[in-house]
Amino acid sequence: MRFFSDNAAAAHPAVLEALGAANTLDTAYDGDVWSKRLDGAFSELFEREVRALWIATGTAANSLALASLCPPFGGIVCHSEAHINVDECGAPEFFTHGAKLLLADGEGAKLSPEAVEEVCAGIRNDVHQVQPRALSITNATEYGRVYTPDEVAALGDVAKRRGLGFHMDGARFANAVAHLDCSPADLTWRGGVDALSFGFVKNGGMSAEALVFFRPELVDATLYRRKRAGQLFSKGRFLAAQILAMLKNDLWLDNARAANRGAAMLGQAAGSRLVHPVEANEVFLRVTADEAAKLRGLGFDFYDWGPGEARLVISWDQDEAAIRPLADAIAAL
Amino acid sequence: MRFFSDNAAAAHPAVLEALGAANTLDTAYDGDVWSKRLDGAFSELFEREVRALWIATGTAANSLALASLCPPFGGIVCHSEAHINVDECGAPEFFTHGAKLLLADGEGAKLSPEAVEEVCAGIRNDVHQVQPRALSITNATEYGRVYTPDEVAALGDVAKRRGLGFHMDGARFANAVAHLDCSPADLTWRGGVDALSFGFVKNGGMSAEALVFFRPELVDATLYRRKRAGQLFSKGRFLAAQILAMLKNDLWLDNARAANRGAAMLGQAAGSRLVHPVEANEVFLRVTADEAAKLRGLGFDFYDWGPGEARLVISWDQDEAAIRPLADAIAAL
Amino acid sequence: MRFFSDNAAAAHPAVLEALGAANTLDTAYDGDVWSKRLDGAFSELFEREVRALWIATGTAANSLALASLCPPFGGIVCHSEAHINVDECGAPEFFTHGAKLLLADGEGAKLSPEAVEEVCAGIRNDVHQVQPRALSITNATEYGRVYTPDEVAALGDVAKRRGLGFHMDGARFANAVAHLDCSPADLTWRGGVDALSFGFVKNGGMSAEALVFFRPELVDATLYRRKRAGQLFSKGRFLAAQILAMLKNDLWLDNARAANRGAAMLGQAAGSRLVHPVEANEVFLRVTADEAAKLRGLGFDFYDWGPGEARLVISWDQDEAAIRPLADAIAAL
Amino acid sequence: MRFFSDNAAAAHPAVLEALGAANTLDTAYDGDVWSKRLDGAFSELFEREVRALWIATGTAANSLALASLCPPFGGIVCHSEAHINVDECGAPEFFTHGAKLLLADGEGAKLSPEAVEEVCAGIRNDVHQVQPRALSITNATEYGRVYTPDEVAALGDVAKRRGLGFHMDGARFANAVAHLDCSPADLTWRGGVDALSFGFVKNGGMSAEALVFFRPELVDATLYRRKRAGQLFSKGRFLAAQILAMLKNDLWLDNARAANRGAAMLGQAAGSRLVHPVEANEVFLRVTADEAAKLRGLGFDFYDWGPGEARLVISWDQDEAAIRPLADAIAAL
Repeated sequence: MRFFSDNAAAAHPAVLEALGAANTLDTAYDGDVWSKRLDGAFSELFEREVRALWIATGTAANSLALASLCPPFGGIVCHSEAHINVDECGAPEFFTHGAKLLLADGEGAKLSPEAVEEVCAGIRNDVHQVQPRALSITNATEYGRVYTPDEVAALGDVAKRRGLGFHMDGARFANAVAHLDCSPADLTWRGGVDALSFGFVKNGGMSAEALVFFRPELVDATLYRRKRAGQLFSKGRFLAAQILAMLKNDLWLDNARAANRGAAMLGQAAGSRLVHPVEANEVFLRVTADEAAKLRGLGFDFYDWGPGEARLVISWDQDEAAIRPLADAIAAL
Repeated sequence: MRFFSDNAAAAHPAVLEALGAANTLDTAYDGDVWSKRLDGAFSELFEREVRALWIATGTAANSLALASLCPPFGGIVCHSEAHINVDECGAPEFFTHGAKLLLADGEGAKLSPEAVEEVCAGIRNDVHQVQPRALSITNATEYGRVYTPDEVAALGDVAKRRGLGFHMDGARFANAVAHLDCSPADLTWRGGVDALSFGFVKNGGMSAEALVFFRPELVDATLYRRKRAGQLFSKGRFLAAQILAMLKNDLWLDNARAANRGAAMLGQAAGSRLVHPVEANEVFLRVTADEAAKLRGLGFDFYDWGPGEARLVISWDQDEAAIRPLADAIAAL
Repeated sequence: MRFFSDNAAAAHPAVLEALGAANTLDTAYDGDVWSKRLDGAFSELFEREVRALWIATGTAANSLALASLCPPFGGIVCHSEAHINVDECGAPEFFTHGAKLLLADGEGAKLSPEAVEEVCAGIRNDVHQVQPRALSITNATEYGRVYTPDEVAALGDVAKRRGLGFHMDGARFANAVAHLDCSPADLTWRGGVDALSFGFVKNGGMSAEALVFFRPELVDATLYRRKRAGQLFSKGRFLAAQILAMLKNDLWLDNARAANRGAAMLGQAAGSRLVHPVEANEVFLRVTADEAAKLRGLGFDFYDWGPGEARLVISWDQDEAAIRPLADAIAAL
Repeated sequence: MRFFSDNAAAAHPAVLEALGAANTLDTAYDGDVWSKRLDGAFSELFEREVRALWIATGTAANSLALASLCPPFGGIVCHSEAHINVDECGAPEFFTHGAKLLLADGEGAKLSPEAVEEVCAGIRNDVHQVQPRALSITNATEYGRVYTPDEVAALGDVAKRRGLGFHMDGARFANAVAHLDCSPADLTWRGGVDALSFGFVKNGGMSAEALVFFRPELVDATLYRRKRAGQLFSKGRFLAAQILAMLKNDLWLDNARAANRGAAMLGQAAGSRLVHPVEANEVFLRVTADEAAKLRGLGFDFYDWGPGEARLVISWDQDEAAIRPLADAIAAL
């Protein structure tokens, strides 16, 4: 049983069905009926007018968002362990034409307002230093930690005061919402977020994320950037249809809840082995090399996460029956 | 009946079936079994060792190819009507970090060796001028014209003599091969081509093109550029599976032949109205505004292509029964 | 006697004196008293509030201006023979992060409003094509032709109507003003120019041009771009001092008048051999290879300018005595 | 008396004289006799064949060097307090098209081989992470610390083993050589350095640094990049002449020795107040706010360097008579 990554899981059957249903002649690019429904669908979900674009990968969604918020000569405050800093091969630098990531730290890959302020305060306001122009957080974080609406709003206040555009990398946004049982609006624009990379691929999608702008004026330049980056698909309806299938009847939430439940079950089994509280669908364990080998010997695969730690990620399609054996094995270590 | 673009057509059922078959857990990105089969499948097709990457769009495939062949301070010789110049919103400039397209002309959007030489000869060999470093042609061209293996080889000779990397935009490569009934090898690397954007999306695919390198050493940097451009899909197996389905039993050729046949039928009906000889799946007609309106009145949709011209593009799924009424209508004008 | 280029000439003694006078301790970068005088000096010259930055080279001044007027995904309409297109090794593409030069033609490297309109009209207003965002003209042009205030204003009208930023490459702005005997204001902002590269180096300066913004809000981003491009000199006072010396007592105009006079003398001698009317300090002659060789045999050096043409450029320090022998030699051909 | 920065000091009279001597007609750009002497002059100084280019600013020299050593998708290991990271407004990112600075720490802004190894070892060798491709150190460092030839060689070994290009920011290279009394060759290429930004502006120059390549094959691309960055001066002889004047009779060494002597004098006076050992021309002191105010009250100006610290920089033209009063004042605190 594999617990490497939610990236590796299958797509939900409803997503494949949607592809079949969209497999007719329609206008190319984003002129089709599916693509045209995105703005409305996300506006409803977020309880206000938003603009939403399909983007094929989370890396591209993040980078396009950042390019819309930060000029080439600006800086983006983010956590040193943020995906945009350590796992996107410099995509933000590519799309922004060389903006600089300004790194802060914080437990569980979470940024506090104080940490953001400290980074900003350490930068002289002159042309010799890259000035902060945007803030990016990941919710849920790379360690499965979740920012609450209040925490987002506190960061939004810093962003506003400092004149920073505010981006949320929501590769696991669904898991955060599922954990908090809050409204998507409360977790984003009501807290000052300007642009959200709303992930579906890790949550049962196939090849479509949404880039949601809460400041509609950011869309125009992004449409050109999307094309220019080779991200405007000829048959965009196949991306839009996936997203609409995920939104329908809150499939995105159901999937996230399922994954979160699995993680919680493992978390309970892990007890004091936990490196981080389990809030989303990731579980980080303290295990010795022997213990890790033992688990692998039982057929469980996962990543080592530095010495003495292991990362287990639960997917939308791993139900209690799939998780239980691993939970038992962990408890028995 | 719509003749706007082969971009707008449905995907072939085999492509959708392949997605279903690939919908299992596997390694993320391009570590899965489908992705790993690409090098072998294309090496077989091209009768030599090649490296092949899935890329989601033709624009990205072209631009990644060009970035592998031309430094930021170099120039790319291409036709003034090349897709990379007029329809990609500056994607080549984005991926190459500002390389310059050096424009040549030629009938039917075809470049002759002389035209390429003339562009190169007009550039002083000093640091004040962008030096040509790559050559890019489209086969079949944006006007449905086809370069023969001999014509490719003649351009390959110029490229070699001038030290230019040689790229072929093969968004409609299948249509060119189908028209010529030649080997893919003869139309590419045997004529000096270094990198080919092998198109599938216009030919019954959904969202996967192949970038084929005949100089394997170009691949390494491209792997980083692909990731950095947000083009490395988490579930890459869904792209690889599409391509493998298209290659299986020469589906790519069958589809292209079908589309070419439809275009030929229209070409015959059009007679002296043809702006360009019909060699692939595109037909350019001289029609008055009244004639165009008449055709549209009969239910045929297409693009005006400058004053007094119309462009009709045939898709893989438009068979004789679908084409005949339009052919008759054109003949009756 | 060399007539290759005004680039090759010596600097005016007043410029060297100014360097000596500025050779004291002062604040680094542009915090010194000389640099701080630029805004005022140019505001007086242009009869309105302007912002002016020293920039070491014309290429950098042009490119920084264009980067302030055009986003990476935009296009810059210019003449196909503009210096920014053919003699700056892609600097505009570098500074703008890949904006595209959209080329128009016109006699003597001059653009007409109609030519600009034609380029713009040929671009579909969709995301697949690079949209025009800026217009750049050279005054005097690369062929020594001069735009009048009315001609500038007519282009400014097009720019305004089309929403284009308007840049003037004034590497030989002084020669244009000297020829027209008009006010600098009439030739620039009153005609809609947003940013001017005001050249001094070809006109007796050593290593300082001025970038003048008539829309002060463009300055802020440019200050960062200047630093980021390695163009913010530690001892900026030495650039500012040069410029102030050139402005003092209209030395810039005197120098340009002297050069223009020399060119006019050659133009008169050349008569029907002239390829372009002589309006600034450049003379383009029709000469056979034999005639060119003869002139060189007499000790006159110059560039061949394509087959059967020669370019002669007069510098600020070539007075009548220096020009007369060449004029006589041309007349005697 | 100002101790803000060696950037603020006057240029040495020999530099101004050289400008006067070069103020004649000569070939433009770098075709003049002065520019052509650079390769030879630096080859002699470095006891091997090198290629040397004039570059107007240290920021540009550093960035051009880095662009020659690191692709856009690569990383540059450097100290977190390196000038390229904190004081160049993202110039390395601009010139390299978005390469990433990979930060290490170390006392006095010095990098140890272990620190470089640690950064490299922390990066997975896959396409998701920016791979290290270059190493950049500053000698003397931003805190006036000096790498010895052995220390450089140890870092060169890491660079070689890891396949990293090796750049030295030598804005104060002269001060390092003067301190060590070693050969420039021992401090650079014999230790594995590939490219050196050899600074003159902080050491009595006006507006010219040298970029020295110990791997001549790196020059060709750099010549294009220099032009493209607007760094190729029309009258390049004025830059070359400055550099040649600095090299003549070891003026560069004399100036650096003078500045180092002044700093040493202050260092001695400062005693236990020193934050870093004084090895070059910078002195970092622990002073209370009151003490700093007292020094300023006596007419000494300098930068606060974080709370409780002050930075004093000595210039080539501050002799013992100029330094003594400050030394006494510090001793008397």
